Amino acid sequence: MKLTTTTTLAATAATAAAYQLDTTLPPPSNLSTLPNNTLFNVWRPRAHILPAKGQIGDPCAHYTDPATGLFHVGFLHDNEGIAGATTANMATFTDTSSNGSFLIQPGGKNDPVAVFDGSVIPSGVNNTPTLLYTSVSFLPIHWSIPYTRGSETQSLAVARDGGRRFEKIAQGPVIPDHPFALDVTAFRDPFVFRSARLDALLAAEGNETAAQLAQAAWTEKGTPWYAAISGGVHESGPSQFLYRQNEGNASDFQYWEYLGEWWHEPTNSTWGPNDEGTWAGRWGFNFETGNVLFLTEEGHDPKTGEVFVTLGTEGSNAPVKPQVSSIHDMLWAAGEVGVDGTDGKLHFTPTMAGYLDWGFSAYAAAGKVLPATSAVSKNSGVDFDRFVAFIWLTGDQYEQADGFPKYAQGWTGSLLLPRELKVQTIENVVDNDLVREEGVSWVVGESDNTTATLRTLGITIARETKAALLGNSSAVEEEDRTLRTAAVVPFQQSPASKFFVLTAQLEFPASARTSNIQSGFEILASELESTTVYYQFSNESLVVDRSNTSAAAPTNPGLDSFTESGKLRLFDVVEDGREKVETLDLTIVVDNSIVEVYANGRFALSTWARSWYDNSTQIRFFHNGEGEVQFKNVAVTEGLYNAWPERE
Amino acid sequence: MKLTTTTTLAATAATAAAYQLDTTLPPPSNLSTLPNNTLFNVWRPRAHILPAKGQIGDPCAHYTDPATGLFHVGFLHDNEGIAGATTANMATFTDTSSNGSFLIQPGGKNDPVAVFDGSVIPSGVNNTPTLLYTSVSFLPIHWSIPYTRGSETQSLAVARDGGRRFEKIAQGPVIPDHPFALDVTAFRDPFVFRSARLDALLAAEGNETAAQLAQAAWTEKGTPWYAAISGGVHESGPSQFLYRQNEGNASDFQYWEYLGEWWHEPTNSTWGPNDEGTWAGRWGFNFETGNVLFLTEEGHDPKTGEVFVTLGTEGSNAPVKPQVSSIHDMLWAAGEVGVDGTDGKLHFTPTMAGYLDWGFSAYAAAGKVLPATSAVSKNSGVDFDRFVAFIWLTGDQYEQADGFPKYAQGWTGSLLLPRELKVQTIENVVDNDLVREEGVSWVVGESDNTTATLRTLGITIARETKAALLGNSSAVEEEDRTLRTAAVVPFQQSPASKFFVLTAQLEFPASARTSNIQSGFEILASELESTTVYYQFSNESLVVDRSNTSAAAPTNPGLDSFTESGKLRLFDVVEDGREKVETLDLTIVVDNSIVEVYANGRFALSTWARSWYDNSTQIRFFHNGEGEVQFKNVAVTEGLYNAWPERE
Repeated sequence: MKLTTTTTLAATAATAAAYQLDTTLPPPSNLSTLPNNTLFNVWRPRAHILPAKGQIGDPCAHYTDPATGLFHVGFLHDNEGIAGATTANMATFTDTSSNGSFLIQPGGKNDPVAVFDGSVIPSGVNNTPTLLYTSVSFLPIHWSIPYTRGSETQSLAVARDGGRRFEKIAQGPVIPDHPFALDVTAFRDPFVFRSARLDALLAAEGNETAAQLAQAAWTEKGTPWYAAISGGVHESGPSQFLYRQNEGNASDFQYWEYLGEWWHEPTNSTWGPNDEGTWAGRWGFNFETGNVLFLTEEGHDPKTGEVFVTLGTEGSNAPVKPQVSSIHDMLWAAGEVGVDGTDGKLHFTPTMAGYLDWGFSAYAAAGKVLPATSAVSKNSGVDFDRFVAFIWLTGDQYEQADGFPKYAQGWTGSLLLPRELKVQTIENVVDNDLVREEGVSWVVGESDNTTATLRTLGITIARETKAALLGNSSAVEEEDRTLRTAAVVPFQQSPASKFFVLTAQLEFPASARTSNIQSGFEILASELESTTVYYQFSNESLVVDRSNTSAAAPTNPGLDSFTESGKLRLFDVVEDGREKVETLDLTIVVDNSIVEVYANGRFALSTWARSWYDNSTQIRFFHNGEGEVQFKNVAVTEGLYNAWPERE
Repeated sequence: MKLTTTTTLAATAATAAAYQLDTTLPPPSNLSTLPNNTLFNVWRPRAHILPAKGQIGDPCAHYTDPATGLFHVGFLHDNEGIAGATTANMATFTDTSSNGSFLIQPGGKNDPVAVFDGSVIPSGVNNTPTLLYTSVSFLPIHWSIPYTRGSETQSLAVARDGGRRFEKIAQGPVIPDHPFALDVTAFRDPFVFRSARLDALLAAEGNETAAQLAQAAWTEKGTPWYAAISGGVHESGPSQFLYRQNEGNASDFQYWEYLGEWWHEPTNSTWGPNDEGTWAGRWGFNFETGNVLFLTEEGHDPKTGEVFVTLGTEGSNAPVKPQVSSIHDMLWAAGEVGVDGTDGKLHFTPTMAGYLDWGFSAYAAAGKVLPATSAVSKNSGVDFDRFVAFIWLTGDQYEQADGFPKYAQGWTGSLLLPRELKVQTIENVVDNDLVREEGVSWVVGESDNTTATLRTLGITIARETKAALLGNSSAVEEEDRTLRTAAVVPFQQSPASKFFVLTAQLEFPASARTSNIQSGFEILASELESTTVYYQFSNESLVVDRSNTSAAAPTNPGLDSFTESGKLRLFDVVEDGREKVETLDLTIVVDNSIVEVYANGRFALSTWARSWYDNSTQIRFFHNGEGEVQFKNVAVTEGLYNAWPERE
């Protein structure tokens, strides 16, 4: 795909032949009045997962088909159902449902009005991939309004035609009601998983409830599946409801035993002190799309892995408006799991929590175990299981963008690049106040009182995806550069397009901690536009300043231009026996309008940067405030790859 | 209404004007080929509850409207929903749903394919009569085939327009699934009731489960409603599933807590020894239409009353054919109720059981408390609560009648006359082997070893209904008569029509017990037809011999002609210090083709007797075998009443 300077609009209307877009000239004042698809290619990414046209919603229904080894990625599409694609390399994808077809759509007895997110048991009913999904009977549903009983139930559908569609089983829901007499805020997005760790906890001797659950017969049938269902309780707070496949009906996945609200937080509370939500936003009013992961330093192991959850939280600034979630936090948490002696039930208690992505538009992550036996792993030679997460990047601020030109663009939203999640350890960290804070996104492991090892969630672009991003052309390197005063310095060689990966390392002196410096890059820059990505110590944030991103934004408020930022602490570390500020290690992927900022293996912030002008492709060093920064190992790899080689 | 000798068929077809029926001549050989409605009036009853036209199914959804005092009787109609009528006197009725309208019909989200039986909470949601009914999503459903998960759920609908219709609450079912992981044979016909007796049992100290249930707050909200749901478990047997309204959501009747399978019997087992089912048929493979009653010697008292159930049991002769119940037993049971120390749950254990009606076609009884405050009771001066049962009399052998002329007749089936149920005590019974049998339909109360008091279910025509039946004309009495040899003796004055009540008492000497005598009446008799109702000691049965009932039967097998019989033991009793055989006290209601035989306040057998000829109105004394019978107090009241004065 090549970004054209002149896009001929699709011939869809009477005005079809009349208008030609020129992105070398100033933009029209109201983009939403343009003919359909006029803007189709202007901001279209090429290496990302999104449907051929139309809207994308939550990712869901991923699995590796045991029969083919192919990984299937799915997503809500056009509010009409779930569509999907397959991949053997986590880079290029083949639509499984094309020509307007869907994997599954609403309209059955269980789901007369909608189909929400589901997840897949790869060897389910009759050893066929089986979707456990939220079947919806009544709308509206929102945490801010009373819940209509029976709005959301969980039903089964079985893959047909190699996963091109899921056939609903002709029966009622397998989880036909939320937990008894709970006034829920939601009850959706079932995430299925297995866990020898949970099996063992529930089977622990002396635990009566657990003993009932730990049926010996499981050993012959493999291990049970669990389902975590997201939601919350009115006047109480958000929850994750835990279910476990009933042994007596293991083969048909018919019954799921309720194990309790294994995770519950008070309404709109936060992780950490002072109700600030500094490191992990707010738990909000309702949980969505909760995943349960068992991560090791390498990948995923449901027996030995540490228990993590990823989740979306729905919140609101005051005053709450009915049916509006003004806040969507894309979070993760890790914690202790144990059977409570008083109620005999399994409970998850967070020990650290953070953002899986700090971007306003990033939400609704849904991941899946990517087994060593998958085609992806075999092709890349990875011989262990991993957990790969897919995150939604809403294109129109959760349909709340004012005047977003969705018809003129012809598509809305995208998924972010596939991400591997694992446990990240940070070694040789000076054991000082920076480390010993409450309510943060890391835990302190071993410490000799001088240095400590920290543990947090590792977030990186999936290795196959990253290899593909960097593999299409050789990197262009910029010379290392030290800036001591405020400056904006253009790269010696900027990319010619808006498709590239920028990697860099920034070193700061200890004095930077108390400085007002801001250091980073201007990207997608030209005389009239630029987007600034920088780190500042004043609030330990990585910032994406979009105030000058797009010439079209001032008259098109739907093209959001507010500043994005996320919290990243650069610790004091000991390197070669010397104490220093941790290096800021940046990877910035620019895929036309999508900007993903990764840092230090544990930070991600993704957003839209909808530059208008063709020539807004420059990159510049950016430094502000008083103090020094050293840029090292700066490289740009241009081109990316076309994730959809089979599309016309 | 007057039975016409010539019925002009309804003008519904091309043949409309061409055919005239003459019931003074022999019947056509195949009635089912007659034009629609040709037979409409031939066998139509006048004092019974049935729709203006079409089919009637299970009675259900009865209640006394607190706002009007009117009693509402409901019934399945044309397999299309529930229709109904109101009454202020238990004799004459006004259609609530006329012109083809229904109280409720299928087609909603909860009941896309069918609406089955429900029962009514008179002051339910917003203090309005509220129907808890079985909402059906999948068919077929039958105990002989695998059960499709979610086929039957229980939903709410609220009375509108004074009970002319029930509006479904726009939400999912309130009982959205059968008990967890049970492979049920059915899960339907919820019967709602209150019971201070069950409340007290569940609140009993030291019972943990019960303690949870016995929320103190109930005292402020009145007492909880229970729901008994009928069905069974594959490979295990029929059951009654007990639920109780959840206190936390009392006002909206939203949640119903499962209290367990409070009654379960092994598959196709019987009450009593030797697997004979002598006194109470078979428990069969599945329970239907279970009601729970708290009866006293007077009427109904949910605090002090003895616990009774009425229920239909679905069975089959061997070999079982898929989707066929060849046996439908209309039974009752009474028993002990208590909380089991081992499982902490409430259990019902029968102590006696019997037939509510012995007729092959009588089934699916649904009753309701008739409060002293109802218009019916006020009008008749009854100042205590009663329980009135309505029983279905299928017109076509549960749709299995071979060639039943349903279109030619234009209607199919009826309800039987309203029946009051209560505890019947039989005093001064000689305490001999006749009393001391296992597995019978009575229990022995106090005994001085010479005489005992027995207790059983009292079954009589509702007093207001009976008064109306007898009130339209004065009775014609036959002289007492003793027959010592086989004889058929016409009444001195037989009725001129097929609408009458025959009452009589028959006295037998002790020697009759070992005799082969058969004593009773021929009714609906003429030269060519007669139906014989008699008692015989050889098997202690009341028999209705229909082999000569109808001149139309030989060529129309759909007009069933098999012999009906029911078991009635005449005890030895002490009267005026003298031991004697209990008097047989008969009330036989003939409402054209419907014959209801009541005996001794504890026996009922109803059936069809479709005499053909106009002049088959004779009654004759009938005596057969060797021995003596004395007929006393024989009286005939002719005319009955028109239960539907407002119908055209």
